[in-house]
Amino acid sequence: MNQNRPARLPTIKDVAHEAGVSLGTASKALNGQGQLRPGTVERVRAAADRLHFRPNRLAQSLHRANSLTVGIISTDSFGRFSMPVMEGIEDVLGSAERSVFMCNAADDPAREKMHVDALLARRVDGIVVTGRRTDARPALNLGAARVPVVYAYTQVGHDPGQTVQAPCLLPDDFGGGEQATRHLLTLGRRRVAHISGPPKFEAVQLRARGYLAALSAAGAAAPLVLHGAWSEAWGREAAAQLFGPASATDALPDALFCGSDQIARGVTEALHALGLRVPQDVAVVGYDNWDVFTEATRPTLTSVDMNLRDLGRQAGQRLLDLIDAGPGQGLGGPLRLPCRLVVRHSCGAPVNEEAPDPRSSA
Amino acid sequence: MNQNRPARLPTIKDVAHEAGVSLGTASKALNGQGQLRPGTVERVRAAADRLHFRPNRLAQSLHRANSLTVGIISTDSFGRFSMPVMEGIEDVLGSAERSVFMCNAADDPAREKMHVDALLARRVDGIVVTGRRTDARPALNLGAARVPVVYAYTQVGHDPGQTVQAPCLLPDDFGGGEQATRHLLTLGRRRVAHISGPPKFEAVQLRARGYLAALSAAGAAAPLVLHGAWSEAWGREAAAQLFGPASATDALPDALFCGSDQIARGVTEALHALGLRVPQDVAVVGYDNWDVFTEATRPTLTSVDMNLRDLGRQAGQRLLDLIDAGPGQGLGGPLRLPCRLVVRHSCGAPVNEEAPDPRSSA
Repeated sequence: MNQNRPARLPTIKDVAHEAGVSLGTASKALNGQGQLRPGTVERVRAAADRLHFRPNRLAQSLHRANSLTVGIISTDSFGRFSMPVMEGIEDVLGSAERSVFMCNAADDPAREKMHVDALLARRVDGIVVTGRRTDARPALNLGAARVPVVYAYTQVGHDPGQTVQAPCLLPDDFGGGEQATRHLLTLGRRRVAHISGPPKFEAVQLRARGYLAALSAAGAAAPLVLHGAWSEAWGREAAAQLFGPASATDALPDALFCGSDQIARGVTEALHALGLRVPQDVAVVGYDNWDVFTEATRPTLTSVDMNLRDLGRQAGQRLLDLIDAGPGQGLGGPLRLPCRLVVRHSCGAPVNEEAPDPRSSA
Repeated sequence: MNQNRPARLPTIKDVAHEAGVSLGTASKALNGQGQLRPGTVERVRAAADRLHFRPNRLAQSLHRANSLTVGIISTDSFGRFSMPVMEGIEDVLGSAERSVFMCNAADDPAREKMHVDALLARRVDGIVVTGRRTDARPALNLGAARVPVVYAYTQVGHDPGQTVQAPCLLPDDFGGGEQATRHLLTLGRRRVAHISGPPKFEAVQLRARGYLAALSAAGAAAPLVLHGAWSEAWGREAAAQLFGPASATDALPDALFCGSDQIARGVTEALHALGLRVPQDVAVVGYDNWDVFTEATRPTLTSVDMNLRDLGRQAGQRLLDLIDAGPGQGLGGPLRLPCRLVVRHSCGAPVNEEAPDPRSSA
C-alpha cells in the first residue's frame, strides 16, 4: 500500500454529514436554491469551508451545455508576438471563469491536428488560434464539430465551403505605416524613406502601402522603400547604402520610417557612426514598440505599437460572444484593430510624457 | 430557434447504429477489449471515422483516477524567461497526452488563489508553477488537496509544515558564473571583472560566487564585482567607470563577465566608443544567450545559456513521475540543472561552430 496516495477529496455527502443536514439540503444550500433558513445555509457553507470542499466542475461540465473550457492553439512556439496576444486572451477568458487549454503546434500540421482532436475530445466551448505572423494560414480542421474559432494575429483565406467566415483579428498595419509617416511629415520632414523587412510578409506590404499613402496625401517627395531582413545588421547596411560616401548630398533622406525596432536600432547606430545626429539630421521611427529596443536605442525610439495585448483581449471577448450566440453568429473575416504611435526622442517631436532626456542617456 | 446551434456530436450509440452492431460491441471494438471478429472491429472503426466520432474524454475523466489534465501557473506574465520553460513543460506533457491549463497569476496572490481553486475544481492531476525570476516564493496554497506540484525557474523556501518538500528546478547559476570565468582565465585573461544586476536577486549572488570561486581556484588577481540595473545603460556606465580617463592603465581588466546579455551589449558599445577592441583588448562574456542580443552585438557575444526549455521539459517529466508515484514521492527541494557556455566571437576563443565572421557584421 502506498500511504502517500492523495487523500480522498471531500464530497457533498461529507459536507452534509459535517453540517448535520440531509444531502438535498446541503446541495440546495451550496447552490443557492430552494427555501432554507439562513442559519442552515450558513452552517452548510461553514462546513464546506472547514472540509475544503470544492464542487467537482468536471462532473458539472458533463451536465451543462458548456464545459467552460477554451483552447488556445499557437501555430508558433510561444514567441514575442504570440505572448502578449495569449496574455490578453487569457485575461478575458480567465475573468469569465473559463479555463484555458494551451497548445503549442510549433508550425507542425500533425501536431496541430493532435491538439485539435484533444481539445474537441475535451469538449472545449471554443478555440483561439494565434501565430507568429499575420499572414494567411489554412483554416483549423474541425471535421464535423461545430465549435466557434477566432484567429488572432493570424488569418485564414476566404473559404468558399464555409457559409460563415471565422473572425480574424489583426493589427491595422496599413494605418500604422500611414500614422508613422504622417507624423514625420507633420514635424516638417520632407524626404522620408522606408526601411523594412522581407516583402513576402503581408505586414511589410501593408506598412509600405500606408507609408506611400501618407506621402501621396502630403504631396511629398519621391518615395523610397528598401527591403531586407528583420535584423539590426540590415538596418546598418541600409543606412550605409543611403548615407554612404557615394550618396548625393542634396537628396539625402531627413527621416527614416523603419519596419521594426531592430532595424531602427541598426539604422540609428550606423547614422551615429557616419557622424549624423538623430533626430537633428535624420529622424527615425521604429515599429513594434519593443521596450528592450526602444529604451536602449539612443535617443530613445519613437515606435508604432500594435496593441497586441488588447488584440488578444478582443479575440477572447469575441470568442465568448460566439459561444453565447452559437458558431454561426457574428461578423467574420479580417478585422483590423488600430495601432498607436508612441512618441519618444528619435523623431524630434516634443515629448509630453515623462521620458528620460535624450542627452542624459548619450 | 437558432438554426446555427452546433449540430449534436455523434455518440457511441450512433456509431453502433451506423455499424449495425450492439452498443456493447461498438464499445468493445473502440476500446480494443473483449473477443470480436476482426471484421467487426474494422466495421465499427470505419463507422466511427465516417461519423467523426470522438470519445468524450470529459466523461471518461470522471471514471478514471486521473483527469489527464495538468495546470501551469505563471506567477509572472508570459515573459522572456517563463516562455521557454512553459514551452518545455507543454512539450513533455502534450506528448504524454496531458492537456495543459494555462494560468497567468500576474504576480497577484488573489488571482493565483482563484486559478488554484479553478484547477482543483477541474481535478487536475498536477500543477507546475513557474515565474520570472528564481527567487523563493510562498508555496502554492492547496488547502486540503494533495496534488503534486513542481516549481520550475522559481522555488519555495523549506516549509517545516510539509513532511515532503516540492521539487524546485533551477538553473545552476553558480556553475554558470564559474564556467564563464574559468573560460576567460583559460584563454589567458588575467584580470576578469564581473558586471552584474541588482544584488537582491539570488541569481546575481550565485553567479558572483561562481565567478569568485573560479578566480580563487586559478589564483587570479583581485576580484571586482559591480552591481547595477539589468540594462544596457548600466553596462555602458560600468564600462565608463572601469575604463574612463581616471582609471590607472596598469590595472585595467582584460576581460568582463557580465550578468546579462543586455549588460554585455552596453559594455561592448562603451568599449568601442572608448577606442578599445573586443576581444583583442577586452574579452566580454554575457549571460542568458538571448539571440536578439548575442547576434546583434559586435562581435557576436559569447554567453551562458540556462537551458530553460530543457528545464521546463524536466519539470514536466518530474510532474508526470510524481503523478504516477503519488504526491509524497520523489526527491524534493532545489535541483540545479547545468548551464552551458555558447562560444561566439566576443571572448577571443576559437569558434568551431559555423558562426558569422565578426568582421562581416561590422
